[in-house]
Amino acid sequence: MNNIRYYKLLFFLLITCFKSYGQEINWTEVLPGVWKGVVGKPESYNLLTAAGVTPRSEAIRKLSNTSFPFVMADVYGGTVDGKTYLRFPLDSLEQLFGFGLHFQSVHQRGKILRLHVDHYGGVDNGRTHAPTPFYVSSNGYGVFINSARYLDVYAGSAVRKDSKHPPQAKDRNVDKTWTARPYSDAVEILVPAAGVEFYVFGGPTPLDAVRRFNLFNGGGVLPPRWGLGFTQRVQRLYNAEEVEEEVKAFEQRGYPLDFVGLEPGWQSKSYPCTFEWDPKRFPNPEALVQRLLKKGVRINLWTNPYVSPASPIFKEIKPFTSSHTVWVGLVPDLMMAQARNTLFSQWQRSQVDIGISGYKIDEVDGGDHYLWPDVASFPSGYAAEQMRQTYGVLMQRYSTGLYRKENKRTYGLIRGSNAGAVSFPYVIYNDYYKHEDFITALVNSGFAGVLWTPEVRASKSEEEWLRRFQSTIFSPMAMINAWASGTKPWSFPDVEAHVKEAALLRMRMMPYWYSEFAKYHFEGTPPFRAMNLEEGFTLGESKKVVTNDLEKNPYAEAYHREIKDQYMAGEYLLVAPMFTGQTSREVLLPKGNWYDFYTGAYVGNGETITATPGLDKIPVYVKDGGIIPFMPPLLHAPKAGEQVAIEVRHYGKKNGEYDLYEDDGESYDYENGEYSFRKIKVERGKEGNWEGWIAPPEKGKPNTIEKVTFKFMTP
Amino acid sequence: MNNIRYYKLLFFLLITCFKSYGQEINWTEVLPGVWKGVVGKPESYNLLTAAGVTPRSEAIRKLSNTSFPFVMADVYGGTVDGKTYLRFPLDSLEQLFGFGLHFQSVHQRGKILRLHVDHYGGVDNGRTHAPTPFYVSSNGYGVFINSARYLDVYAGSAVRKDSKHPPQAKDRNVDKTWTARPYSDAVEILVPAAGVEFYVFGGPTPLDAVRRFNLFNGGGVLPPRWGLGFTQRVQRLYNAEEVEEEVKAFEQRGYPLDFVGLEPGWQSKSYPCTFEWDPKRFPNPEALVQRLLKKGVRINLWTNPYVSPASPIFKEIKPFTSSHTVWVGLVPDLMMAQARNTLFSQWQRSQVDIGISGYKIDEVDGGDHYLWPDVASFPSGYAAEQMRQTYGVLMQRYSTGLYRKENKRTYGLIRGSNAGAVSFPYVIYNDYYKHEDFITALVNSGFAGVLWTPEVRASKSEEEWLRRFQSTIFSPMAMINAWASGTKPWSFPDVEAHVKEAALLRMRMMPYWYSEFAKYHFEGTPPFRAMNLEEGFTLGESKKVVTNDLEKNPYAEAYHREIKDQYMAGEYLLVAPMFTGQTSREVLLPKGNWYDFYTGAYVGNGETITATPGLDKIPVYVKDGGIIPFMPPLLHAPKAGEQVAIEVRHYGKKNGEYDLYEDDGESYDYENGEYSFRKIKVERGKEGNWEGWIAPPEKGKPNTIEKVTFKFMTP
Repeated sequence: MNNIRYYKLLFFLLITCFKSYGQEINWTEVLPGVWKGVVGKPESYNLLTAAGVTPRSEAIRKLSNTSFPFVMADVYGGTVDGKTYLRFPLDSLEQLFGFGLHFQSVHQRGKILRLHVDHYGGVDNGRTHAPTPFYVSSNGYGVFINSARYLDVYAGSAVRKDSKHPPQAKDRNVDKTWTARPYSDAVEILVPAAGVEFYVFGGPTPLDAVRRFNLFNGGGVLPPRWGLGFTQRVQRLYNAEEVEEEVKAFEQRGYPLDFVGLEPGWQSKSYPCTFEWDPKRFPNPEALVQRLLKKGVRINLWTNPYVSPASPIFKEIKPFTSSHTVWVGLVPDLMMAQARNTLFSQWQRSQVDIGISGYKIDEVDGGDHYLWPDVASFPSGYAAEQMRQTYGVLMQRYSTGLYRKENKRTYGLIRGSNAGAVSFPYVIYNDYYKHEDFITALVNSGFAGVLWTPEVRASKSEEEWLRRFQSTIFSPMAMINAWASGTKPWSFPDVEAHVKEAALLRMRMMPYWYSEFAKYHFEGTPPFRAMNLEEGFTLGESKKVVTNDLEKNPYAEAYHREIKDQYMAGEYLLVAPMFTGQTSREVLLPKGNWYDFYTGAYVGNGETITATPGLDKIPVYVKDGGIIPFMPPLLHAPKAGEQVAIEVRHYGKKNGEYDLYEDDGESYDYENGEYSFRKIKVERGKEGNWEGWIAPPEKGKPNTIEKVTFKFMTP
Repeated sequence: MNNIRYYKLLFFLLITCFKSYGQEINWTEVLPGVWKGVVGKPESYNLLTAAGVTPRSEAIRKLSNTSFPFVMADVYGGTVDGKTYLRFPLDSLEQLFGFGLHFQSVHQRGKILRLHVDHYGGVDNGRTHAPTPFYVSSNGYGVFINSARYLDVYAGSAVRKDSKHPPQAKDRNVDKTWTARPYSDAVEILVPAAGVEFYVFGGPTPLDAVRRFNLFNGGGVLPPRWGLGFTQRVQRLYNAEEVEEEVKAFEQRGYPLDFVGLEPGWQSKSYPCTFEWDPKRFPNPEALVQRLLKKGVRINLWTNPYVSPASPIFKEIKPFTSSHTVWVGLVPDLMMAQARNTLFSQWQRSQVDIGISGYKIDEVDGGDHYLWPDVASFPSGYAAEQMRQTYGVLMQRYSTGLYRKENKRTYGLIRGSNAGAVSFPYVIYNDYYKHEDFITALVNSGFAGVLWTPEVRASKSEEEWLRRFQSTIFSPMAMINAWASGTKPWSFPDVEAHVKEAALLRMRMMPYWYSEFAKYHFEGTPPFRAMNLEEGFTLGESKKVVTNDLEKNPYAEAYHREIKDQYMAGEYLLVAPMFTGQTSREVLLPKGNWYDFYTGAYVGNGETITATPGLDKIPVYVKDGGIIPFMPPLLHAPKAGEQVAIEVRHYGKKNGEYDLYEDDGESYDYENGEYSFRKIKVERGKEGNWEGWIAPPEKGKPNTIEKVTFKFMTP
C-alpha cells in the first residue's frame, strides 16, 4: 500500500472533519461563575450591545462560588456555510426551563422552538413577546446565547447517530415501551450567523443561575414606588374631562390609583402616530398632568413607534427609517442617532417635559402583519431580523433614557422584549387574554428576565372579573386595561367589595413588593417566578400517554406533569390563583411548613393540598418563618420622603428575618448608595413568646418608616 | 465645491445602492409563455434538480400564445449578505392562490407564510406537506420560485415607503375606514441563498398558468388504472391470514377492491424499519401477493425510510446517512448513490420483485419531532433544510424508479412533497382528519402540483362515515385507512347500502377519472381543482369585519369570503360535499347552465343554490354539454387488454364533446405513443333528438372499449 497517499488522504479527511466539526470554542471565565464561549466570528450586534447594559459585577462576585456545571468538553460549537451549530449536554434526569415567555408550558425539555419576537399566537413554539435565548437547568446552571437572530432550538429532542448515550431502537409493532420521542442527550441550537458568543451561568442552584443571568444583564428593574400601586387605563377615546372624572371617581369611591393610562385618543392621529396631543380631546395637557400630579396620580401614554405623515417629525425622520412601513407609518431606524434624536426629542418636548411619567409602547412585537417584513432594509444596515429581535429592547433603552437624564424613574408597558432588557422598567402585556395562560406566563417570566402583567380587561362574569383582579394584584403591575371595554374596578357591583379589598391589599403590601423588587435589582432574584426555582419543590416525574386512541394520538405521545398555575411572589409567598368555574383547586407545597396568608394557620408540608378559599380570596401561602411587611391602605404610593407605619407580619414556627428596602422611591440616587436594607428579625423570646426587632435607620440614608408594629400570625 | 470629491461620493453611493438594490434579473423565455429569471448565483440544488424532471416542452408549445403577464421592470431581485430578495407586482383587484397545500384557506393574498415541509399543524402558515413555492394570480399567470430552501413569503402584506401605489395613512381614532392591513402592491419573498432562479408562467387564464407549471414539471401523473379503483388499508398488525380474510370479505359482500395496504406490522420491526417481512405474521409473502394478484387485488406497503439497527442493510447504509436519527433509525442520505442503492435494492429484492405494487411512504414531512433537526448534517454536504424540503420528492423519484425500470406503473401515498413531484405517482395524506379542511386541501392541491386524498379512517357516527366516504369517492384516491381503527366499508350497517353504492359509483366512473388524469399528464389540467380556476366563476369580493368587539378583535380585522368547500372534478363535474350535521348546503354555481349529476335536471346558472340531497347522495353538478363516460360496476379495474362496455352520459342543452383516453392502463408504453384519445360527440339530430357518436379505435393502439351506449340525462 502506498503509505504517503494513505496519509495524505487521512490528513485531508481530518482537515475536512475539522472544518465541519472540530472548531474550537474559546472559553473565558468573565466573572466568577460566568463562562463565556466564543465560536467563529460573532456578530458585533447582539442582545447585550443592543441593550447597552453593564453587568453588576460586584453583585455577581458576592454570590457563592461555583464550578463549571458540566463537562466543558461536551459542549460543541462549529460553523458551516455561514451558520453556527451549538450543542450542550443533557443528563438523563435534567429538566429545562426558559427559552422565553411561554404561555402554556413550563418544562421545555424536548421542545423544538424557533426563538422569534412575535405576538403570542396560542402555541409555545418560540414565537413570543420575549423569546429570551436563555435556559435554566434543574441541575443548577443556565445557558444564554447572545444573538439577535432567530434561533432554532432543539431542547433535548434530537438524537445523534454518534450520541454518547444512545437510546435503543424499539419495535413499535409489539413493544409497548416504544416512544415517539426517544431519549436525547443534548440541547442543539442553530444560529444563522458565522459565529456567536454564549454564556454558561453557574449555580449551584437553578435560582443562582437565574440570579447570575439577571445580574449579568444589569440586574433586575427597581420600579419607582408608585409603579407598584394600582393603575387604570381609560377607554381609548376619553378626553381630558373624562379622564379627570375617572380619577375623581376612584378617589370618591376609595380605590387606590397611582397612574392612569391614556390610550390612542390622546394623539391627534394614531396607528400610525403623530406623538402630538389631540387639541380637541386634550386642549391643555400640561394643566391636566399638573392637576393630577397634585392628587398623586401620574399619567402614562400609549403609543407605538410608527410615524404618521401628519406627525411634525415625519419629514425630519423619513431618511432614517426602514424601507417598509407599519400601518403606512415610518419605522424609525433606532440604530441611527438621527432617528432616535428626532423621535425622542418629540416625546420629551411634548410629553416628558410637561410631566408625563411613562409609556405603554405597543406593537413592537409583531403579529407579523403589524410589523415590517423580514425583507425590509434599514439605513443603518442592520437586518430586519436583528431589528425585530431587538426593537422592543431599543425602545425600552432609549425611552428610559429620557427619564434617566432627569434622574426620575419611570415604569411602563412594552409588548416586545428580549435578553438585555432585564434592567429596563417595563412590563410585558398582550391581547391574548386567557387567565390560566397569563399565570403560566407569570411563572415563566422569571426565567426570561422580564416582567409580565396578567392585566384585567373585560370579563364575562363577576366571578371572572374578581378572579382576574385577584391575580393582577399579585403581579408586577396591578392594572385594569379598559382601552376597549371602558371597565372600572366597580363594573361588577356584586363583587365590588372584594375587588376593593384586593386593590387595597395591593397597597398594604407595597413595602413587601418594593423590597422584593430591590432584591431583583441588587441580587438578581426575580420577584415572580416558577415553583421549580423554590428549594424543596419536587414533582415526581409522571409521564402519561395522553390517549391510547391512535386516531386521536397517532404517535402515542405522552406528556409530563408540570406545575404552571401557581408561583412564588417574592421571598416568602406562594400564590395559587383561582380560575372561573373553580370552587377548589390543588396546590403543590414544597417541603417545609406552609401557612395561610390570611389566617396564619398551618396548611401543609411538601404535599398537595386542596384550597377552597371562597370567592373573596385568592389562595396565598407563606413559608415557615416568612415575614411580610405591610403599610396602611393608602390610595397612592408614599412620596419621596414620606414616612409610613409598618406592620410586620410573621408566619410559622421558625424565626424570621427580612431585609426591608428603603430609598427615595423615585430617583436613581440608589445607584449612588442612597438606599439601605433594614434588617427585621422575629425570634422566640426567653419565655417562648415571639419578639420582633428592626434595625435603626442608617445615618444619612432615606428613612421611610414612621413606626413599626409586629403581628405574629401563627400562634 | 470640489467637483471631483462630489462625483467620487456620488459614484460610491451609486455602487453602494447597486450592491443592495440594483441587481439585474437575467430574463430568458425558456419556452413559449415560460419566462425564467435569474438573480445572483442560484444554488445548483433546487426543486427541479431534486426531482430530475424534464419539461413537457411539446405540450407547452401547443398552448395558446401569451405575452409576459405584467410589467417586467416591476419585478425586483437583489442579493444582500447572502440572501436574495424578490418582489413581484400586484394589481389592486388581483387575488392570489397557491403557495402549497393549505387546509383552511384558498385566497392567499395578504398572507405571510414560511414555506416549510411539515405535518400540517392546524394553521395555514406555510408549514405543510407540500409547501410548493408557486402562486397563481386571478390575473392569469403563475410564479414559481425554484428553491429548496425555507422561503419567507409576504403575499401582498408588506407596504414599502417607496411604493408606486401607496395606501393612505388613516387615523384609527376617528376614521372608520381604518384598516389593520393597508393595501400592498407586491409579493415579496426572502430566499436564504445568494441567488435564485424563478419562473413566470403566462396565461391568458389562471388555469393556463397552472397547466404550464404542471407541464414544465413533467406533466401530471397518470396513475395505473387500478390506482383509481378502491383501496383499503388494513389494521396495522394484521397477519397474512387476516389480510386474505379481509380481501375475501370485500369479494363476498360485493365491494370493489383494487389494492390493499399493509401497515407497519408487515415489517419485522418498525419505527424505525427493517424493510423485511415479519416471519410470523407473513411467513410466505410471495405466495400471498400472488394469490391476491390472481384475484385482481394488489398490495401496497407502508414504510418510512428510517433504518432500524435490526435491518439487514443497517451496516451497509450507515456511512451514507445523516448525523441524526429518526426514532433511532438511520436517515439515508438520498443524495448519495450508495444510500439509494442500498435502500432501494432491499425494497426491490424483498418486495417489488415478489409483486408488491407500491408504497405508502410515511413521515417524510416532519412534525419536527419525527424528523431530523435542522442542525443535522448529511455526508453529501447538502443542508438539513434542503433535504427536508426535498426528501419526499426524492423518495417519490427513486421509489418510482423501481417500477419504471420494469415498465410498470405504481400508485402510492406520500406525506411530504414539493414542486418537481408533479409527475410522480403519489397522493398526499396526513393525520389531521378534519373533513371540511380535507376538502379545502383538495381545492388547493390543484394549485400545488400535488394530489391529495380525503381518506376515511374512523367516524363518530354513521352520518360522518357516509359523508366522508362520499368525498373520498370524488378524489384522487378512494380509500379507507383502517391502520388504527380496523374499520371496513360495512362498519356502519345503517348506511352500508349507501357506502356500497358510492364505492361502485367510483368504479363506474373509472373511464372518466382515467381520461381526466390523462389530461393532467398530457395537458397539465389538474383533475381536482378550485372553483377559482373555472371559467364563469365569480365571487363578489365581500370584505367583512369579523367582530366589532375590540376585546376579541383588537385590530378590527376583516376577512374575505372565499369558496373552499366545493371543487371541480375533471372537466365537467362540480362536487359540493356534505359535512356531518348538514341537511342542506349552499353551492355557488359558475355562469352557464348546471345540471344535477344523478337526474340530469337543471339546477341553476351563475347563482347560489341550496342543495338538500338527503343522506344517500353527495351533491354533484354537471356543466352544460358535459359528458361523463361510465363503465359497469366491476369490483376491480379492467386489466391490460380487457375491454369494457361504456355508457356515455350527456347533460344539459349544449352539444357535447369528450376525449376518452385509452392505453394499456398499466405500463409506461403511453410515453412511446401507445395511447389514443377517442373523440365522443353528442349533438342534436335533424329532428331535435340527441345523437351520440364515438370515433373508431386508432389502428395499432390499445382498444379498451367493448361497446358504447348513450344516455341523454337531460330531456
